[in-house]
Amino acid sequence: MPDMEHGPAVTLADILAARRTIAPHIWRTPLIHSAALSARTGADVYLKLECWQRTGSFKVRGALFKLGTLPAEASRRGLVTASAGNHGLGVAYASQVLGAPRATIFVPETTPQAKIQHLAAYDCEVRRAGADYDASHALAEAFAREQGALYISAYDDPVVIAGQGTVGLEVMEELPDADLCLVPVGGGGLIAGTSVAAKAIHPATRMLGVQPLASPSAFLSFRDGHAYETYDAGPTICDGLAGGFGRLPFEIAADLVEGVLVVSDAAVRRAVGWLVAHEQLLAEGSAAIAIAPLLDGELDVAGQKVVAVLTGRNIDANLLQDILQERRER
Amino acid sequence: MPDMEHGPAVTLADILAARRTIAPHIWRTPLIHSAALSARTGADVYLKLECWQRTGSFKVRGALFKLGTLPAEASRRGLVTASAGNHGLGVAYASQVLGAPRATIFVPETTPQAKIQHLAAYDCEVRRAGADYDASHALAEAFAREQGALYISAYDDPVVIAGQGTVGLEVMEELPDADLCLVPVGGGGLIAGTSVAAKAIHPATRMLGVQPLASPSAFLSFRDGHAYETYDAGPTICDGLAGGFGRLPFEIAADLVEGVLVVSDAAVRRAVGWLVAHEQLLAEGSAAIAIAPLLDGELDVAGQKVVAVLTGRNIDANLLQDILQERRER
Repeated sequence: MPDMEHGPAVTLADILAARRTIAPHIWRTPLIHSAALSARTGADVYLKLECWQRTGSFKVRGALFKLGTLPAEASRRGLVTASAGNHGLGVAYASQVLGAPRATIFVPETTPQAKIQHLAAYDCEVRRAGADYDASHALAEAFAREQGALYISAYDDPVVIAGQGTVGLEVMEELPDADLCLVPVGGGGLIAGTSVAAKAIHPATRMLGVQPLASPSAFLSFRDGHAYETYDAGPTICDGLAGGFGRLPFEIAADLVEGVLVVSDAAVRRAVGWLVAHEQLLAEGSAAIAIAPLLDGELDVAGQKVVAVLTGRNIDANLLQDILQERRER
Repeated sequence: MPDMEHGPAVTLADILAARRTIAPHIWRTPLIHSAALSARTGADVYLKLECWQRTGSFKVRGALFKLGTLPAEASRRGLVTASAGNHGLGVAYASQVLGAPRATIFVPETTPQAKIQHLAAYDCEVRRAGADYDASHALAEAFAREQGALYISAYDDPVVIAGQGTVGLEVMEELPDADLCLVPVGGGGLIAGTSVAAKAIHPATRMLGVQPLASPSAFLSFRDGHAYETYDAGPTICDGLAGGFGRLPFEIAADLVEGVLVVSDAAVRRAVGWLVAHEQLLAEGSAAIAIAPLLDGELDVAGQKVVAVLTGRNIDANLLQDILQERRER
């Protein structure tokens, strides 16, 4: 719940300010109507193509707003972050286009090659450390303290959340009467920011998070009424969503989000393959998960205007091949 | 050579007029710097992402300008076209957003399922007829004559060419000192229009066409000094590029294009797989062919600013799987 004494932590005005700062450095991504998903569900289904964003994911938005509003002295002793890949790419890109100091980016050992390769193209230092995101995050925070450097959170920061909220702002500008918005959930920056924007513009829009079964930290957080800030996730192809749910995203989203759907990796794999076969869209597991509840028919959305946010496209070619082969053999 | 008595058939002014007409209905697609292709070639390589265009290919540009400037009575007795898929999608989309009459679209039997499925989502009539593009084109023209309907050429029309030329305009606005532009060639609408734009803005920009070995009609046309308007193409995954090279594109492009590179299907397949693995971009064979000469190192571009136009993304999932599997086994 927002701190009512000081007002909510993130407002629509913050998100509009974020857009003003980041607009020169990002693309406004399309919101497309999916004829195939609409036919399948009886709804009008729209896809927000953040998989076509610069750096390959929406994460660049929060990173740009954070680095774009830092006081000069804050980053004097360096920038450090931890990331499953996409937030790191966002920070690396933002520090480059904004002329901020070179960032040190901790990535867990589970990070796909596609993301590592792209990081190598930026002027940043990549440290592959920690068995999973939470471990990598702890190492990065310790390193930042030791160096006196500034740690850039991937989601537990109102400025980052306002940046991610610009996704929701763009969606609602094009579809101001959306009935339902499906948003992939990991640390919670996107669902928190997007929910603030959507609810401020159209309170009747229902927000649903979608999370992998192997890492249901947001689902548990809402169920139990407190944030599971770390979570010992099982293996999942949704590398970008594994780990804990942030305290601040929890506080912001608790009153705005209707619930969190939990999806098996098998369903995520079907979603990745479906998007290639029917929309010729490349989405990583952490992104394609948004349409999984529509594909398997578990969600009754007939007659509604539904938006699914496809958050990124940085998937490994071999994993994609496995998924397309499974699809063919079914 | 342009008809000097009446001035050139397509000018930069025509292309600017096309942009004014079509801008509300298309996306301005990104021109991205490819770090991986640049490292590989020693050049600065940029990719024009028309694979992210509405309908999945650049073809929608020419179709929108054509239908957007038709006198009302011209289409009174119907619209007919022939297409390997993408031009048909462009015509179907354009007729829908512009409120033009329902189009009858002839597609050859070689048209991939991905394109057929998308056509089905529009209010148009699809006729699968003819063993290849040239045969389908002949059937469509005969049908149009019989019905008194208007036949919309995919490339042999100055209005369509001006529409496709907006791709070149966008490229040159972002990279006005490009040294080299690699453009996939089939009927020639894109290379003709793009060359007019690029040469008008920066005459030193070199234009190179890229064509599949199975259908080298443009290569032969330039070599022999006359347009091979039909060509009995062998099998190729570049379904969008198979067939003859248009008379008007030949006349326009002959003095502007430096040459045409001819590429094997094996090289095209490697290009499709490379784009997925290194840029997470889905491109059909007819699009990925543009980077094939860069990947195999046959073209020395070190130190240059090079643009490759990725024209479309409508590839079948099973073909993509085959290609990714080949890549993995290499």
